[in-house]
Amino acid sequence: MPKKTAPDSTRRSEKSRRAIYAAALDLIGEVGYAKATIEGIAARAGVGKQTIYRWWSSKAEVLMEAFLDLGEQSHEQSGGGDAVIPDTGDLAADLKSVLRATVDELLDPRFEVPSRALAAEGVVNEELGRAFVAKLLEPSLQLYVQRLRTAQTAGQVRAELDPRIALELFVSPLAQRWLQHTGPISYEYTDTLVDYALHGLAPR
Amino acid sequence: MPKKTAPDSTRRSEKSRRAIYAAALDLIGEVGYAKATIEGIAARAGVGKQTIYRWWSSKAEVLMEAFLDLGEQSHEQSGGGDAVIPDTGDLAADLKSVLRATVDELLDPRFEVPSRALAAEGVVNEELGRAFVAKLLEPSLQLYVQRLRTAQTAGQVRAELDPRIALELFVSPLAQRWLQHTGPISYEYTDTLVDYALHGLAPR
Repeated sequence: MPKKTAPDSTRRSEKSRRAIYAAALDLIGEVGYAKATIEGIAARAGVGKQTIYRWWSSKAEVLMEAFLDLGEQSHEQSGGGDAVIPDTGDLAADLKSVLRATVDELLDPRFEVPSRALAAEGVVNEELGRAFVAKLLEPSLQLYVQRLRTAQTAGQVRAELDPRIALELFVSPLAQRWLQHTGPISYEYTDTLVDYALHGLAPR
Repeated sequence: MPKKTAPDSTRRSEKSRRAIYAAALDLIGEVGYAKATIEGIAARAGVGKQTIYRWWSSKAEVLMEAFLDLGEQSHEQSGGGDAVIPDTGDLAADLKSVLRATVDELLDPRFEVPSRALAAEGVVNEELGRAFVAKLLEPSLQLYVQRLRTAQTAGQVRAELDPRIALELFVSPLAQRWLQHTGPISYEYTDTLVDYALHGLAPR
């Protein structure tokens, strides 16, 4: 199917929107969430601040959409497709492949610098933290919930487990190492987490 | 053995030191790490800033010791004893009891408010983050390493596992929920983490 050509005004808006997202992410990465302002984002994007207020009502809202857009771009670059965790029948392999992609993302400066600024603010600003988790983090975690439910149906994960807690055994260690610099992050590390979580620490 | 009586000058110093720790923790909790200054800590503690510089060379150093002191106080209040994880022979019970104490600590405002300010700064300030992890967090994690090693010797944890990674399966989920407000924290939750981590997600 041929791609529709957007009318000029839409293309211009799209360009401004992308420039504003980039400016917002750059600015928060440089000065932190608290010191980033709508005025600062407008100046950096080369637009008037009214342009920003026409589309968004607050700094938090611009940033939320900028991060959503960043996530979509990163998803498209990594091959696109549906935003689900693969189901090859091999649960360990599927989880490992998604966690390896997360390692790449966490170590990509375009993602890392603004994400750290946002995460830092979320630690001390519960309202903002919860809003961003609900929009940006929880939807990804729900993909693991779905994959673990499928695995429960297939008899590969114990049926009585709560998948929303179970996923934390391999997701949260990576998150903590990234957030708190408590240890190195690598494919080998996340592969190990999946193996430990699936098989457990106690001998079988 | 009778307790030694400290000479007057030592008692005065001890009192100032405690006042400075309290002021430092209050201030960082109120204004955040970046905006807390030695001057601000001195003013709040009712001492001259030279008093602070006599004992510490930087804001980071005062805060580091203030947090260490807070941890010691909290440890003494919870019954004191050696800073190790109990070894009753029941690994699950031992891990659960320590994690329950951590839940209490994380939800205690005296600990929570300044700790969040420090953790937030550590997310964006890698040098500070690493320094505080090395002094404040890693020593506690090493207690889990020791307990897991004992369990390996007793055949209760698989011998081939790296205990420094294994502990993250039950410690990091709690840390992430606390840091990022990704879910509620309770004894039931941490008990569940221990059970999932020890027995694994896959059926046995």
